[in-house]
Amino acid sequence: MSFNTFGHLFRFTSFGESHGAAIGCVVDGCPPRIPLEAADIQAHLDKRRPGQSRFTTQRQEPDAVKIMSGVFTDETTGKQVTTGTPIMLLIENVDQRSKDYSDIKDKYRPGHAGYTYDVKYGITDYRGGGRASARETAARVAAGAVARKIVPGLTVRGALIQMGPHKIDRARWDWNEIGNNPFFCPDAKQAKFFEAYLDGVRKAGSSCGAVIEIVAEGVPAGLGAPVYAKLDGDLAGALMGINAVKGVEIGDGFLTAAMSGEDNADEMRMGNEGKPVFLSNHAGGILGGISSGQAVVARFAVKPTSSILTPRKTVDRYGRDTEIVTKGRHDPCVGIRAVPIGEAMVACVLADHFLMQRGQMGEGTAWPFKPGA
Amino acid sequence: MSFNTFGHLFRFTSFGESHGAAIGCVVDGCPPRIPLEAADIQAHLDKRRPGQSRFTTQRQEPDAVKIMSGVFTDETTGKQVTTGTPIMLLIENVDQRSKDYSDIKDKYRPGHAGYTYDVKYGITDYRGGGRASARETAARVAAGAVARKIVPGLTVRGALIQMGPHKIDRARWDWNEIGNNPFFCPDAKQAKFFEAYLDGVRKAGSSCGAVIEIVAEGVPAGLGAPVYAKLDGDLAGALMGINAVKGVEIGDGFLTAAMSGEDNADEMRMGNEGKPVFLSNHAGGILGGISSGQAVVARFAVKPTSSILTPRKTVDRYGRDTEIVTKGRHDPCVGIRAVPIGEAMVACVLADHFLMQRGQMGEGTAWPFKPGA
Amino acid sequence: MSFNTFGHLFRFTSFGESHGAAIGCVVDGCPPRIPLEAADIQAHLDKRRPGQSRFTTQRQEPDAVKIMSGVFTDETTGKQVTTGTPIMLLIENVDQRSKDYSDIKDKYRPGHAGYTYDVKYGITDYRGGGRASARETAARVAAGAVARKIVPGLTVRGALIQMGPHKIDRARWDWNEIGNNPFFCPDAKQAKFFEAYLDGVRKAGSSCGAVIEIVAEGVPAGLGAPVYAKLDGDLAGALMGINAVKGVEIGDGFLTAAMSGEDNADEMRMGNEGKPVFLSNHAGGILGGISSGQAVVARFAVKPTSSILTPRKTVDRYGRDTEIVTKGRHDPCVGIRAVPIGEAMVACVLADHFLMQRGQMGEGTAWPFKPGA
Amino acid sequence: MSFNTFGHLFRFTSFGESHGAAIGCVVDGCPPRIPLEAADIQAHLDKRRPGQSRFTTQRQEPDAVKIMSGVFTDETTGKQVTTGTPIMLLIENVDQRSKDYSDIKDKYRPGHAGYTYDVKYGITDYRGGGRASARETAARVAAGAVARKIVPGLTVRGALIQMGPHKIDRARWDWNEIGNNPFFCPDAKQAKFFEAYLDGVRKAGSSCGAVIEIVAEGVPAGLGAPVYAKLDGDLAGALMGINAVKGVEIGDGFLTAAMSGEDNADEMRMGNEGKPVFLSNHAGGILGGISSGQAVVARFAVKPTSSILTPRKTVDRYGRDTEIVTKGRHDPCVGIRAVPIGEAMVACVLADHFLMQRGQMGEGTAWPFKPGA
Repeated sequence: MSFNTFGHLFRFTSFGESHGAAIGCVVDGCPPRIPLEAADIQAHLDKRRPGQSRFTTQRQEPDAVKIMSGVFTDETTGKQVTTGTPIMLLIENVDQRSKDYSDIKDKYRPGHAGYTYDVKYGITDYRGGGRASARETAARVAAGAVARKIVPGLTVRGALIQMGPHKIDRARWDWNEIGNNPFFCPDAKQAKFFEAYLDGVRKAGSSCGAVIEIVAEGVPAGLGAPVYAKLDGDLAGALMGINAVKGVEIGDGFLTAAMSGEDNADEMRMGNEGKPVFLSNHAGGILGGISSGQAVVARFAVKPTSSILTPRKTVDRYGRDTEIVTKGRHDPCVGIRAVPIGEAMVACVLADHFLMQRGQMGEGTAWPFKPGA
Repeated sequence: MSFNTFGHLFRFTSFGESHGAAIGCVVDGCPPRIPLEAADIQAHLDKRRPGQSRFTTQRQEPDAVKIMSGVFTDETTGKQVTTGTPIMLLIENVDQRSKDYSDIKDKYRPGHAGYTYDVKYGITDYRGGGRASARETAARVAAGAVARKIVPGLTVRGALIQMGPHKIDRARWDWNEIGNNPFFCPDAKQAKFFEAYLDGVRKAGSSCGAVIEIVAEGVPAGLGAPVYAKLDGDLAGALMGINAVKGVEIGDGFLTAAMSGEDNADEMRMGNEGKPVFLSNHAGGILGGISSGQAVVARFAVKPTSSILTPRKTVDRYGRDTEIVTKGRHDPCVGIRAVPIGEAMVACVLADHFLMQRGQMGEGTAWPFKPGA
Repeated sequence: MSFNTFGHLFRFTSFGESHGAAIGCVVDGCPPRIPLEAADIQAHLDKRRPGQSRFTTQRQEPDAVKIMSGVFTDETTGKQVTTGTPIMLLIENVDQRSKDYSDIKDKYRPGHAGYTYDVKYGITDYRGGGRASARETAARVAAGAVARKIVPGLTVRGALIQMGPHKIDRARWDWNEIGNNPFFCPDAKQAKFFEAYLDGVRKAGSSCGAVIEIVAEGVPAGLGAPVYAKLDGDLAGALMGINAVKGVEIGDGFLTAAMSGEDNADEMRMGNEGKPVFLSNHAGGILGGISSGQAVVARFAVKPTSSILTPRKTVDRYGRDTEIVTKGRHDPCVGIRAVPIGEAMVACVLADHFLMQRGQMGEGTAWPFKPGA
Repeated sequence: MSFNTFGHLFRFTSFGESHGAAIGCVVDGCPPRIPLEAADIQAHLDKRRPGQSRFTTQRQEPDAVKIMSGVFTDETTGKQVTTGTPIMLLIENVDQRSKDYSDIKDKYRPGHAGYTYDVKYGITDYRGGGRASARETAARVAAGAVARKIVPGLTVRGALIQMGPHKIDRARWDWNEIGNNPFFCPDAKQAKFFEAYLDGVRKAGSSCGAVIEIVAEGVPAGLGAPVYAKLDGDLAGALMGINAVKGVEIGDGFLTAAMSGEDNADEMRMGNEGKPVFLSNHAGGILGGISSGQAVVARFAVKPTSSILTPRKTVDRYGRDTEIVTKGRHDPCVGIRAVPIGEAMVACVLADHFLMQRGQMGEGTAWPFKPGA
């Protein structure tokens, strides 16, 4: 059972509200003797951190992470390493600016979780969105930074591939461009366009959605636990669970519905290293819920935030019709900062399945079979 | 931790291979005193059952379910009811026809789980796909039939809304048409077209994909457990975990990426029953991972099956290049039978969250707030 | 983990009532390629099987187990092996003899679960104790038989060491005697006495308790997951969860309360195989919740069954004062058949922790440390 | 559930080492709108806090708890209440005094977890026992303080009933005496004796064990989840999981082995409130794993700590024979401070089962049955 805990063997439990004292998480099940410094985690948090361009909320949060437990000095190397015990990662809130909530305190933003939290719990910390705030995702990124260190040879990268109705040109995909624009966009030309487009959205007090693609390379074949903890099932749950996400695809996703069996089949040939190579990757690296050794490819859609300047019809918590306008700091396109979050969730799922696979199967099976062996 | 167990408080554990002795599941956590006869479950199994039209596999399986435990006679009503103890549902395999597997025994179908199971486990019951067979989904439908009885007033219905590249016309949507064609298609006109289209696919020995939409009405507001067991996260995991599914959407899904915040907001007005009414349902009934009281709408894409007559390049389990052609019985569009399966998974997720909500919150909270109360 | 599922990575879900169609379990998370025949399981079930002496219930149940899924033929060896998918073990009920329950149908046996089941669920299959019957423990023994095959070199044996107020003489402990008497008693002389003693209890229509000791040898050091899935914590939960158990000890158990720190310390010396040897085993093989490599020793107390011929004051389900006498078949000392059940639970806990340890730590750590390495 | 998380629906995840920056826990699944101030928790922590008498370690830790999340101001009452989101409880370590570990850094104390942690993880934060330190139990007490507020009318109290070989006289049991001596002893006369006895143990640099009894009153009938999350099974797991505990009993525990069925039966009569009253409580309030409405009574044995001044034979982490003497601060009888810890674990188990019961069964069943209703 989960609620605020994610994962099976590698898992983390997050806590904290947007305008409370702190947010963070407890990472449990991490193997011991993995080198881990706060700086390793900070590097990923900094990508998600707000206030770094005019395209994200101007809330100034250093998001400085402290490792509060679960590490110790390796005598031999002198490095700080994990000990196998719970790793508590603490991020103090700094710039809460909780002065004025008179407006959203009582009124629900259409498309926001305010109403559903109130109906469910009967009370909500409405300041900055409370627990429903994207601020919680910093905990995910922190946990993901630990997860990345568990599967040997694993690389997880994400890219924004659509902003509003505008897609990138995949022919121009260049991973090196990701860091050259404020959008994690691998298409330099389209990134320029996004800049102008998003300025328009921002100035209009509006918001727009986005599509993010995550690619994990170096995923060992054999990860995934049929039938109700399939690798793709767990990835879909993880990504759909990110704030504002409304759709998830693995590999060719919804396009496969329109494909024929012939076109969708990823044909195989033996490669040089005793492993098969696939002639295409429509499957996104997962077959029958189990990784095939190809790159794992997942995609998710982020809806436009409900924090907009145009008045919307709504009700308040006392059951009265009213209207709402959301002022204050916010992201015109929350999809941008969803890129490192998506990476983190994919890394966590893969680390978890890596440990589960090792638990059930040991160091894994020998493939191909030796006839008569 | 899960593997072959689905759910938290309401959960089921499935077992069985395509050509083994039987398949089935153990449903656990069901509330007591719910009337339950085998016929209640059979009705849903019959929808998923193969061999009912020329568009599904010709394997003849009665899929007759037996309730092996967890029920007893209510003295007062004389009806058979649940007792709160595990409900074992057993479906014996009848038409295994396991004679000849010389071909698929050693060769992997591109796009099928054969290779990944072998790499993971080092051994696979390849007969009819073994554990990876869609036959396992009968257990899900059986569990779903129990789940449907748990949330008072809940209705879960599914429809096939796209076959291959061809979509239905949503303006012609009529739930009453679902039972009038072999596709669970709510658009009678398009169903006719699908018939001709699928005949073509079938005769060509090819296969096609599909898109399914599931609509749950009567979902109480407040279901969902932030932040890692969100209702939409759990639904996405459940639907992506169905065989051959490659994409999942909630509400407007991937379309929301292209929408503005203004258009995406589901505005609210107070209704007559002391509850808000929403002027649209882009969110698909879920905000912040919690149900809003609107209909929950989920959609998923099913890829074309890998069982096709056209030869495909592949490798065998001994690491040799080869080709494969899949003869034998199969569904040209596995998406059709995915409709009752998708309904079942949605029903299970909702039942589970209904019990979790009741556990944490009791009989729920009073909304709207009474000022000064 | 919860309700009717036991374990984390290696786990089983049990089902069935005493007088229903069948009982059994689904074993999940078992590693693949482990040889497994029904006969392997049957051998253990036969030890628990009723009706084998005049000292257990005369119900005649063959307890014949069928493996319904999760196994396949290993091509190389021709043997039936596990495949890593769920193993469903089915035991049909044969001798239900459910004719006359007019007495216990409405009246609660003091000390029995009838009242608490009724209060909890509002309905109970009272026939033969329903789900609360010791018959459910056959599922545990079956799962335990699979578990025994997972940890290489593991042996789990149990013995009855006290019957009523009478203890064995530990100086006469001989494991070879276990099979020579109907009590699993390692003290041949005391077994003779038990025979006479239990005949007296039986003829008086009374019942008596017992204490069972389980010893697991070949447990690798390092198993156990601090701090809330400690090996001793999980063992205690597993053993206390057996029907009629009221106390559990690890190692010297309650005696340690009266010991000094000097006496309780298990001193260590380096052995020949690069591992420490312990000069005593007060700890029962577990320190800090983690196995030390010594034999794991657990002990549990089984209360006398509530099925006795002497009338007892009670109430009925309609809230009326009454008296009850329990006729019908029953065990005068349920502790006897608890021996194979205790063995099974210990085997399941150890298998589970073995897989968890392997998951988190891989093939384990090197001890002792090499200075400067 | 697993590793460092305890519980199913109500659960907490703990973190921290003895000499790290902080310890604490994240409490998840707590119902909303429960008044909760730090002072409510502090009151219980203060009971467990070291350095309050000469009979506990002289480490000076204020154990000041901060509530870092999961609470908000109730508008109506103005009180701070829970919101249903995770409650992070942080306790900073103050008096680590980690200067000199040259001795225990390399040598294993016989009876302590040093060796098993090293074998399991390959690295251990040995300072003050690291994660294996009793310091972790402060997190349990903090979580327990929240748990106590969940079940209406519940009272959980504990008492030390044996120190070393010396038992209290139950005839002199007076709960009011618990706070009048430094041992939580309900027998004022024996408490005096314990004082002298423990002074002797302390001055000799030795240690002694203890037996603790926990009594929970106001437990509703019907709590417990057969068959693998039975209330007694979960209690046993919870209590055995406390540091240094080697035995657990429910009700009459090991004594029941020596009782006859007649003597062990808790006879029933209808009481005035439409509920049965029991004429005795040998069962300790639990039948068939489900609470009966009687007081739940659990008992556990705490072994003497391994930190003693007498030299003991041991090995070091480099595999060399050596001797060890443990100087430094420690408790001569760790069982004393185990009283509030045991209370906390029992409260957590009961809160958890209360929520699970409500989840599966709603507001519960009506008993007694109305004939013909």
